[in-house]
Amino acid sequence: MLQKAAIVNRALDEAVPLDRPERIHEAMRYSLLGGGKRVRPVLCLAACEVAGGWDACAMPAAVAVEMIHTMSLIHDDLPCMDDDDLRRGRPSCHRAFDEPTAVLAGDALLALAFGRLADPASYPADGSVPPDRVVRAVGELSRCVGAEGLVAGQVADLEATGLGNPVSLDKLEFIHLHKTAALLEASVVLGAIVGGASDDQIERLRKYARCIGLLFQVVDDILDVTKSSEELGKTAGKDLASDKTTYPKLLGLEKSREFAEGLLKDSKEQLSGFDPIKTAPLLHLANYIAYRQK
Amino acid sequence: MLQKAAIVNRALDEAVPLDRPERIHEAMRYSLLGGGKRVRPVLCLAACEVAGGWDACAMPAAVAVEMIHTMSLIHDDLPCMDDDDLRRGRPSCHRAFDEPTAVLAGDALLALAFGRLADPASYPADGSVPPDRVVRAVGELSRCVGAEGLVAGQVADLEATGLGNPVSLDKLEFIHLHKTAALLEASVVLGAIVGGASDDQIERLRKYARCIGLLFQVVDDILDVTKSSEELGKTAGKDLASDKTTYPKLLGLEKSREFAEGLLKDSKEQLSGFDPIKTAPLLHLANYIAYRQK
Repeated sequence: MLQKAAIVNRALDEAVPLDRPERIHEAMRYSLLGGGKRVRPVLCLAACEVAGGWDACAMPAAVAVEMIHTMSLIHDDLPCMDDDDLRRGRPSCHRAFDEPTAVLAGDALLALAFGRLADPASYPADGSVPPDRVVRAVGELSRCVGAEGLVAGQVADLEATGLGNPVSLDKLEFIHLHKTAALLEASVVLGAIVGGASDDQIERLRKYARCIGLLFQVVDDILDVTKSSEELGKTAGKDLASDKTTYPKLLGLEKSREFAEGLLKDSKEQLSGFDPIKTAPLLHLANYIAYRQK
Repeated sequence: MLQKAAIVNRALDEAVPLDRPERIHEAMRYSLLGGGKRVRPVLCLAACEVAGGWDACAMPAAVAVEMIHTMSLIHDDLPCMDDDDLRRGRPSCHRAFDEPTAVLAGDALLALAFGRLADPASYPADGSVPPDRVVRAVGELSRCVGAEGLVAGQVADLEATGLGNPVSLDKLEFIHLHKTAALLEASVVLGAIVGGASDDQIERLRKYARCIGLLFQVVDDILDVTKSSEELGKTAGKDLASDKTTYPKLLGLEKSREFAEGLLKDSKEQLSGFDPIKTAPLLHLANYIAYRQK
């Protein structure tokens, strides 16, 4: 996983050169290259492998999903949103630069993600990723970002936070399926599409991704109440301080852990029909998401 | 042009239904459907016709460029950017709703633009727009939005406004070529691509678009100093009040009008090699942009 993350980091570095106007490119690079576990791109590469492709086929999609992830962090951290000063152990984008630069850096990364995905020069020259797959991948990525995906999750999250009282389990699941799982789903599905998966395979991998997407958030909620800011590299205990509803608050810590175990099991079941050698990285990633410490 | 704008309005209306979460879709619809001259989509349809296509081939691209335009207006109006309360004669998005909703509505429209462009269901079923054209169109749209396009223009504009003293003519042209002309260029080029234009035709139409893009801004600057807020449907005299550099300020009103005439002539020259019946709408649009009163 570390090896794959290193390849992804190189690709991200190349995808956003320090062009003019410099300040906006600096801001994009600051947020895009400033650490991060690269879970989404690594998922994308792993799903492509399961589908029969190889890393070079999925790299444009891997870069795109990480750009979208970074963009959503930059915009979510804005003063008018979650108002977070710390991200990945450093000042968030609007603190390191300024607010307009942060809004625009997010916009530029969002646009650039689609550009990378649709750039013929970023794919293997042998035509192993035909244009109809690229078009399908663009459509999937769009859905996962827009008002049916990340944006819907953030809207529901802001509404819930404003209410002051705990939201229902259904509502919490809606928030996380959109705010977190949607992009993990897109990462896996895009990898599967460019790798040449069948419709049936895509749908099974989609289910795997939704399980680990929800799992990712449950674990995030658990870490927020059990770890320090220093250990996490971001403000810990923030959910509690902001009266935000989390799985530990609704279910208690023990039941949250059981819920996480169930999701991990469900995610692994979706992989049973594939070649076990090829699914090893996706199984490992599910375990990583379940047992990570930050 | 009014007839084409009406078709575009119907397509825009259908492209953003009032889904859940309702508030974000309301905000997207408020800004997308709240007037606007639909210059970009009409340009897109007209360029497609010149290239040998018809309206149905270019409608997804036409919808996409108007979504991008709306998104850029929503984000540019934000308090941390141009801080504008009035847009198209009504409260701007963050005034009618709130700031986080405006940021997210912009993000959602940006993502949705690419989604519409890449949705096979939005094209004629006869395959007259093959996927490789769609991929190329996605790449063009991405470039025009990102840190080489709209975003670069807005960054340079914010920097110039902060300086307090007039910027050079070169810098002013950089701002407008990116902030305004880039999306008009994308509108024309996308229409040409989906309509099946040759590379040579695309480049001539691109030059036409860059001329009318700059023309659009010169005329905008002239209107800002010669018309009232009521006539424009947005705050007039704002450029003067904010010490913003404009063509009339740098060149004077008379020379600005001469510059506009020159751009109009240059734009028309690019159309000379095409079928004159098919270029009539593009010629008309150039005249419209030059002689509009708001």
